[in-house]
Amino acid sequence: MVSTLEQLNAATPDDAEAMLDGLYAQSPWIGRKALRARPFRSLAQLQHQLRHAVDAADTETRLALIRAQPELADVTDFTPDELERLQHLRADYSAQFGFPFVLAGRDPRGTILTPAQIIDELTRRLDNPPDVEHQEALRNIHRMAELRLGGDFAIDLTTGNDIWDWQEKLSAHSDPGYAEKGQLTVTYLTDAHRACAQRISHWMRDCGFDEVEIDAVGNVVGRYHADLADAPTLMTGSHYDTVRNGGKYDGRLGIFVPMACVRELHRQGRRLPYHLEVIGFAEEEGQRYRATFLGSGALIGDFKQEWLDQKDAQGITMRDAMQHAGLCIDDIPKLRRDAARYLGFIEVHIEQGPVLFEMGLPLGIVTSINGSVRYMAQIFGMACHAGTTPMNRRRDAATATAELALYVEQRAAQDGDSVGTIGMLEVPNGSINVVPGECRFSLDLRAPSDPQRDALVNDVLAELAAICQRRGLRYTLEETMRAAAAPSDPAWQLRWERAVDALGVPLYRMPSGAGHDAMKLHEVMPQAMLFVRGQNSGISHNPRESTTSDDIQLAAFAMQRLLDDLAHDSTH
Amino acid sequence: MVSTLEQLNAATPDDAEAMLDGLYAQSPWIGRKALRARPFRSLAQLQHQLRHAVDAADTETRLALIRAQPELADVTDFTPDELERLQHLRADYSAQFGFPFVLAGRDPRGTILTPAQIIDELTRRLDNPPDVEHQEALRNIHRMAELRLGGDFAIDLTTGNDIWDWQEKLSAHSDPGYAEKGQLTVTYLTDAHRACAQRISHWMRDCGFDEVEIDAVGNVVGRYHADLADAPTLMTGSHYDTVRNGGKYDGRLGIFVPMACVRELHRQGRRLPYHLEVIGFAEEEGQRYRATFLGSGALIGDFKQEWLDQKDAQGITMRDAMQHAGLCIDDIPKLRRDAARYLGFIEVHIEQGPVLFEMGLPLGIVTSINGSVRYMAQIFGMACHAGTTPMNRRRDAATATAELALYVEQRAAQDGDSVGTIGMLEVPNGSINVVPGECRFSLDLRAPSDPQRDALVNDVLAELAAICQRRGLRYTLEETMRAAAAPSDPAWQLRWERAVDALGVPLYRMPSGAGHDAMKLHEVMPQAMLFVRGQNSGISHNPRESTTSDDIQLAAFAMQRLLDDLAHDSTH
Repeated sequence: MVSTLEQLNAATPDDAEAMLDGLYAQSPWIGRKALRARPFRSLAQLQHQLRHAVDAADTETRLALIRAQPELADVTDFTPDELERLQHLRADYSAQFGFPFVLAGRDPRGTILTPAQIIDELTRRLDNPPDVEHQEALRNIHRMAELRLGGDFAIDLTTGNDIWDWQEKLSAHSDPGYAEKGQLTVTYLTDAHRACAQRISHWMRDCGFDEVEIDAVGNVVGRYHADLADAPTLMTGSHYDTVRNGGKYDGRLGIFVPMACVRELHRQGRRLPYHLEVIGFAEEEGQRYRATFLGSGALIGDFKQEWLDQKDAQGITMRDAMQHAGLCIDDIPKLRRDAARYLGFIEVHIEQGPVLFEMGLPLGIVTSINGSVRYMAQIFGMACHAGTTPMNRRRDAATATAELALYVEQRAAQDGDSVGTIGMLEVPNGSINVVPGECRFSLDLRAPSDPQRDALVNDVLAELAAICQRRGLRYTLEETMRAAAAPSDPAWQLRWERAVDALGVPLYRMPSGAGHDAMKLHEVMPQAMLFVRGQNSGISHNPRESTTSDDIQLAAFAMQRLLDDLAHDSTH
Repeated sequence: MVSTLEQLNAATPDDAEAMLDGLYAQSPWIGRKALRARPFRSLAQLQHQLRHAVDAADTETRLALIRAQPELADVTDFTPDELERLQHLRADYSAQFGFPFVLAGRDPRGTILTPAQIIDELTRRLDNPPDVEHQEALRNIHRMAELRLGGDFAIDLTTGNDIWDWQEKLSAHSDPGYAEKGQLTVTYLTDAHRACAQRISHWMRDCGFDEVEIDAVGNVVGRYHADLADAPTLMTGSHYDTVRNGGKYDGRLGIFVPMACVRELHRQGRRLPYHLEVIGFAEEEGQRYRATFLGSGALIGDFKQEWLDQKDAQGITMRDAMQHAGLCIDDIPKLRRDAARYLGFIEVHIEQGPVLFEMGLPLGIVTSINGSVRYMAQIFGMACHAGTTPMNRRRDAATATAELALYVEQRAAQDGDSVGTIGMLEVPNGSINVVPGECRFSLDLRAPSDPQRDALVNDVLAELAAICQRRGLRYTLEETMRAAAAPSDPAWQLRWERAVDALGVPLYRMPSGAGHDAMKLHEVMPQAMLFVRGQNSGISHNPRESTTSDDIQLAAFAMQRLLDDLAHDSTH
């Protein structure tokens, strides 16, 4: 029997509980507790309350919930060999973690997993630390509930699934050397890249865009006209190039979500009081050429002429690659937008981090794109015999670096939303019996605002100097990157917040640690971003990057809501 | 005018001060202060008091002493180009350190330095931290005083110089691939190695040894007979093989010092009441084959038959190498000594560490050869995006390792004479923008006794476990080496102490952080070692390994004294 949210909201407590019966195996207390928060504006809100009920329970109760889960029910087509392997791994798993293996059994689009996928997942999860795996089991239980609710409440996932499918289809195009291995790599102006542009432009036409073109740098630009020709324009979009062996959602999600919105507007025959410009940026990742943000940069007049002479690994200049792609290099300066004609820029992007995943939240409101500074550093001490040099006579470059690493960790944590990382670390030609005379490392420091970043940088560099002074060491430091923070425009951030709140999805504000096209547009117009939860702890730049069609659909609905609200505001 | 120590001891304060006039430029206070410690038993004792006077002065006074030094006086044969280069470097040096470049101007044997050597030294010292260079300048000033005193008091350095020269001559033999580059490498049973054995055996005969042979593993064994045939035997010696691109003194000093003693005994026609067996061990470093301590090990029955099948990098088995060298493999078991016939084993060795160098002491009494344990370890965390992963959601393998590195540092320091080192350290495939998911490192832990070492190891491993537990990480640990400590026999250590004290050289007791042949003999007989100061901060396993003929002579005199005292004890 299919229920509706209205029915659930209106039901007596007992009836409501009955409607959620079996959602969590042998644990009716979860539904009972969550229902106290009625009325719900959305299933997302109900799901959040269900999660909240479990999170608030004590460890024993949560363990009981995990142990109450039935074995994978959906899967029946294991071969005898696969079944034996599964039983074996399952026994290892139980022995290791003290609870049985729990898996939702369906992929992010709701498709039943193959035996091979299940065995892979189980094998991988055996490497998790116990606390991580405890959380992972609970997340799978919630995902099962989500899938079940989708059925019970007959949720129409068409929008989410269609966007998911666009991404899947687009990932069929991959550069030579990667395509053969089933890896996704789409770098600037390769055949795969140009095929992606064609695909996106065709889908845009299908969605009902009024104008679709591929511009002079390869951006795919779709325009859905306002009801009045001299209306201002809202720009949105993201990039369709990828890193090497990357994920299917990074960038592309931000093109397809607004495409789905335009499709819906077109279906309804609706016009907005502003033009909507949806752009698939050709280049953001800087993989083939060292020219990150080329696509969005061109729109603010930031295309560097010297890039044209850069050669890729095969010796092909960017100029040649552009000519080969039929792009009109002379027209690049014309791509520069007149910011006065724009309302602003909004961008949807997969989070590329673990926060929403771990918090069980589908969407996040971006408060700022972090400013960052990067350094390559070396500390020089005195290499000496590890056996014969007393501790108080050493000038150990590695322990000095260790001291800095711990300082960076605690100093960044102190801000709450700053991050600091030593990602590269090496004692060159180190020997087991030689006190390190040299240590090389990288420093990556980021914060939501430039002053906060600069305070972090100053403290870290002062500590580096102090450590080396105290320990009698030398150091060198080379700044390799510096990017200004791009705080979200408060009015636009608020529009995202209203849209998300209207869906009954809890608001969560967070900085973006990664750079995005919005950083470029930020230089000329107000911008704000919306994050979508990534699966697999938010892993990105990796084939395991993933997001569910449920979350994608919520993002699309949030954008529709924002567009509607903006239309409403503009006409009142 | 040549003075004697007796004259100095008997002189009035003013006359004594006049005898030391000009020893330290414009700083008569140093001699004045040192003279308060009269009478001196040796120039070494006087020199120690001179050093002590300078060490006790305040920083300003020491700086004034450095600034009072004349420019390099001994050297006049600079070419105009060299002179210009020197002036340039000197200006850099003064600008960097705030005091002029001070150099004793003579090498460890007292030979005047070439312009190229001076420029090299100045160039290298520009890289020193300021506090190190301050000490370096003072050491050069003391060395100038030592050289000057040697002249003023007409010190006969024949013994020290001869030993120095033996080492220099022996270093003419080096393995192919190294000899061409002027590098010293003598590995087991190469042509160069066998030439060394021949040289040593010839020199032993020249010194007056009664028997000299090359034994079944290639050890050069010289015997100087006692006055009675059934007397017990004292064994001494060290190894003549080297590491690759090693130093000239590591091991060899411990062969040549007792050879000089035997030469003196033979000149005087003296016999001791015990046989003296001086051994040049063929193999200690384990370079060509993984068979460290092969030479001394054979004497305690510790030769492993499986070593014979080991192949070197060219595929030559040890068996073939031994046969090629004319060694009689079948006789190896016969090398085993009957410990009951031995008084003990003593060994002189260059310190291979910075302690004596930094303390300004020529000799050190070894209290124990440290026990050690080595591990290769890996910590596994979760690789994730350095921008998007908040500090409190990371499982950073590198910061965990950093925490351990600092713990090892402070825990070893806590013992005073333990050492702990992370010499190899690497984030494999680290990226500037990725939180380290893995960190590999080595652990080397040593202490003068096994219980002290084990307590250190237990604490370090417990901390590793605790860090990983707290941070939610996994780790692996592989023990790659474990060696028991070899504490010096108290009676033999005391004999070294008496001999050193009799020379007026201050006693300094210290553990040996490196392994030595004495470790092997320790398993069957009492042993004790004497350390000789190394120049250049005690660097070893390096071409810059060095020691002065002055210090070498003190070691030889100490051994003569020990042999005499032992003879005296044996006959009374």
